[in-house]
Amino acid sequence: MKLSLIAELLENDFSGSDIEITGLNTLKNANEHEVSFVSNSKYIKDIESTKAAGVIIADYLVKHLPSACIPLVVEHSYLSMALLSKHFTPPIEDETLPIAVVGEGSKVSPKAVIANGAIIGKNCTILAHVYIGAEVVIGDNTIIYPSVTIYRDCKVGSDCIIHANSVIGSDGFGFATDTKGEHTKIYQNGNVIVEDDVEIGSNTSIDRAVFGSTLIKKGTRIDNLVQIGHNCEIGEYSVMVSQSGLAGSTKLGRNVVMGGQSAAAGHLSIAPFTTLAARSGVTSDIKESGKTFAGFPLMEHRAWLKLQAKIARLLKQK
Amino acid sequence: MKLSLIAELLENDFSGSDIEITGLNTLKNANEHEVSFVSNSKYIKDIESTKAAGVIIADYLVKHLPSACIPLVVEHSYLSMALLSKHFTPPIEDETLPIAVVGEGSKVSPKAVIANGAIIGKNCTILAHVYIGAEVVIGDNTIIYPSVTIYRDCKVGSDCIIHANSVIGSDGFGFATDTKGEHTKIYQNGNVIVEDDVEIGSNTSIDRAVFGSTLIKKGTRIDNLVQIGHNCEIGEYSVMVSQSGLAGSTKLGRNVVMGGQSAAAGHLSIAPFTTLAARSGVTSDIKESGKTFAGFPLMEHRAWLKLQAKIARLLKQK
Amino acid sequence: MKLSLIAELLENDFSGSDIEITGLNTLKNANEHEVSFVSNSKYIKDIESTKAAGVIIADYLVKHLPSACIPLVVEHSYLSMALLSKHFTPPIEDETLPIAVVGEGSKVSPKAVIANGAIIGKNCTILAHVYIGAEVVIGDNTIIYPSVTIYRDCKVGSDCIIHANSVIGSDGFGFATDTKGEHTKIYQNGNVIVEDDVEIGSNTSIDRAVFGSTLIKKGTRIDNLVQIGHNCEIGEYSVMVSQSGLAGSTKLGRNVVMGGQSAAAGHLSIAPFTTLAARSGVTSDIKESGKTFAGFPLMEHRAWLKLQAKIARLLKQK
Repeated sequence: MKLSLIAELLENDFSGSDIEITGLNTLKNANEHEVSFVSNSKYIKDIESTKAAGVIIADYLVKHLPSACIPLVVEHSYLSMALLSKHFTPPIEDETLPIAVVGEGSKVSPKAVIANGAIIGKNCTILAHVYIGAEVVIGDNTIIYPSVTIYRDCKVGSDCIIHANSVIGSDGFGFATDTKGEHTKIYQNGNVIVEDDVEIGSNTSIDRAVFGSTLIKKGTRIDNLVQIGHNCEIGEYSVMVSQSGLAGSTKLGRNVVMGGQSAAAGHLSIAPFTTLAARSGVTSDIKESGKTFAGFPLMEHRAWLKLQAKIARLLKQK
Repeated sequence: MKLSLIAELLENDFSGSDIEITGLNTLKNANEHEVSFVSNSKYIKDIESTKAAGVIIADYLVKHLPSACIPLVVEHSYLSMALLSKHFTPPIEDETLPIAVVGEGSKVSPKAVIANGAIIGKNCTILAHVYIGAEVVIGDNTIIYPSVTIYRDCKVGSDCIIHANSVIGSDGFGFATDTKGEHTKIYQNGNVIVEDDVEIGSNTSIDRAVFGSTLIKKGTRIDNLVQIGHNCEIGEYSVMVSQSGLAGSTKLGRNVVMGGQSAAAGHLSIAPFTTLAARSGVTSDIKESGKTFAGFPLMEHRAWLKLQAKIARLLKQK
Repeated sequence: MKLSLIAELLENDFSGSDIEITGLNTLKNANEHEVSFVSNSKYIKDIESTKAAGVIIADYLVKHLPSACIPLVVEHSYLSMALLSKHFTPPIEDETLPIAVVGEGSKVSPKAVIANGAIIGKNCTILAHVYIGAEVVIGDNTIIYPSVTIYRDCKVGSDCIIHANSVIGSDGFGFATDTKGEHTKIYQNGNVIVEDDVEIGSNTSIDRAVFGSTLIKKGTRIDNLVQIGHNCEIGEYSVMVSQSGLAGSTKLGRNVVMGGQSAAAGHLSIAPFTTLAARSGVTSDIKESGKTFAGFPLMEHRAWLKLQAKIARLLKQK
């Protein structure tokens, strides 16, 4: 999509040399063929250093943009970005892509569907009612149980096991809400990358990134009914027990253990080798590695045990 | 089913003019072709004003019934209603219904199943392994991702997106338990209505109503792994974040936000523009709109913050 | 697999008469054709009384083995058992098994898949996109809604209803973690047995046992999005409300009620007729039957109410 057309859609005058824009991205990650957006003055450093070709921006922030970057001035930049995001979403399936390639030794059920453009490695087992979307890439020796859905553009490594009815790559939960309280979808044009040797339980949901990738690093073990929001990153050999959940953009270091029904809010960073007891809820960064936490609000496990003792005493008082 | 036959099944004598009964319903909502039930003396007002053709009722309550209403006297009215409910449940599929109608421009995967009697609007996308039940009606431009199941009689509006492996219209969790502790299923003969512009995440369950409809109003956004019990009503533009849950018959006003892993008990009413923090648990009505709550038991968010500060102090005390 | 070959894989010398080993099992349950393992000196009684043909064991514990039992001495017995478990896992599907048998009066959708070796009883309804694995046995009159996946070797009784997109028999969450923090899968070679008259909601996961069976006894009612870990046992007529969860090997007596979002840790025993309020979390055995509990940590419901009153008072104090 031409930058001039984007300017026109956002009711901005356009002058200068036009270029093809390939997508939307954050200020930090956008390249010179992408457009970004900013809705908050606390990102001034990111505005000043962005490489984006254009930025959807409020008037008073324009002065912070690098000179090479085209300002796209709007009143509600988050909402404008949402409206624009639809134009960068590829078709769900695309008949013009080449027929899927399936590697030697792989067994694909005739009742599975593999969309055009997908590539399956060697010695995989793909069972009935599986759906593998356009341009999905799967490594070798991976087993995908019935009714798993993998949305387009996602990648799954080698030696993975994905249990029945799990979903990889459904849309992240993103929308812009206007002043009337109505929501506009932010199309989730990123993907999910699952590295090698990952096992994912049944009925688990891993959302695709809004931009870039939701990343599940190698050796991770994910149980049943787990929620992983868009743009999360799960470190190597981490363990997420059943019914645990991560809001968007939270990053776990390696060997983090999340107990059953535990959760973390969005945009957090959790240090390697952290253990989170069942039901614990993380609402701020965990910086020191190797500790065990419990409770909601979260506290060190020892403190939590002490608190329970105090509560027991409180209960005995008249 | 004839009223006389129902009387016979419930071992009641029947006299007077017989009519065809079309279903079961609550005292309040039953019409003159439906049968209702009552198991509790606190509903005397509803008994007195019911329009039901007949009511399954304990002997001592019969005197409160309107004269036009036939009493169906039983010992355990809830259990008798459960036993009767089976007779009003339609077949899951019905070959005698007309072949499904699919509107112009809609793309339906050959690996999707659309049962007889269904009607799909224009420009919809229905992906592989989707199941659309008998007499389901779907509007225009709606996208249904793989392995979504929509049970019979449900309605989905226009411009909706339903993500992979979600279920619309599974049976509500209803049964009558006898004195031995054994359960008898209450057939869930209502449906689910999803209005226009609703997005539903992956692996989410929305149960059909026992009578009437579970209602998801327009513009609502529902995330992954969310539970919505039978007969709930979700107001316009509400937001339910991942792993939140609603027990049966709870009603949210418009623009209610339910945070991740939050929940509400059954038969509650939550005022418009209420925000429920992650993990909050609602156990009584919220009458004033626009407030933010947290915790379980629920309290205003400010009170919850204060409580946490007090708990932190308590923890420091020797 | 020959015992001599197992010894060789575990780098043990082997002498004496060789036998065919049919599987792995616990010290208590292993028979004379099975191999067991022990990683903890607290199981000395079980070591002394095991009937296993061989036991994977640390050197210092060998002296406790019965004389008929072959010691398989390793450094990390849990990890060695995990590595060995792979050799006892059957193929997911097996073309050499006889074509599935479907009883009289059963309706199976042409879009369902029933693997070889399965046996379906009479008058069942199996809807589209269902997957029934190898050697699964299903009783009479059972209804299986779309996109349910039942893994190989599981058994479902008569008069059951399994709602859409639920999974019976996915792998339990089992792995051995080495000193570097890397995980080795413990193959889950047990199954799930669902007895008669059980109803299971949508998007629920019931994991297969690592050895033996996960057992759902007759008359149980399980709601949507429920997690049941490997080797759990659910007593007759129990009720598990939506989003509740059980970690592995926990046993519920009959008529236990688990409220919404409640949970129990692993290896616990919960007495018959126990009621667990919504959100309650069980972390130790419940021995007395018929009581009601709430909270996390768990306490009797009355104590929980008292605690909430005290917390409310605490909140009012300056």
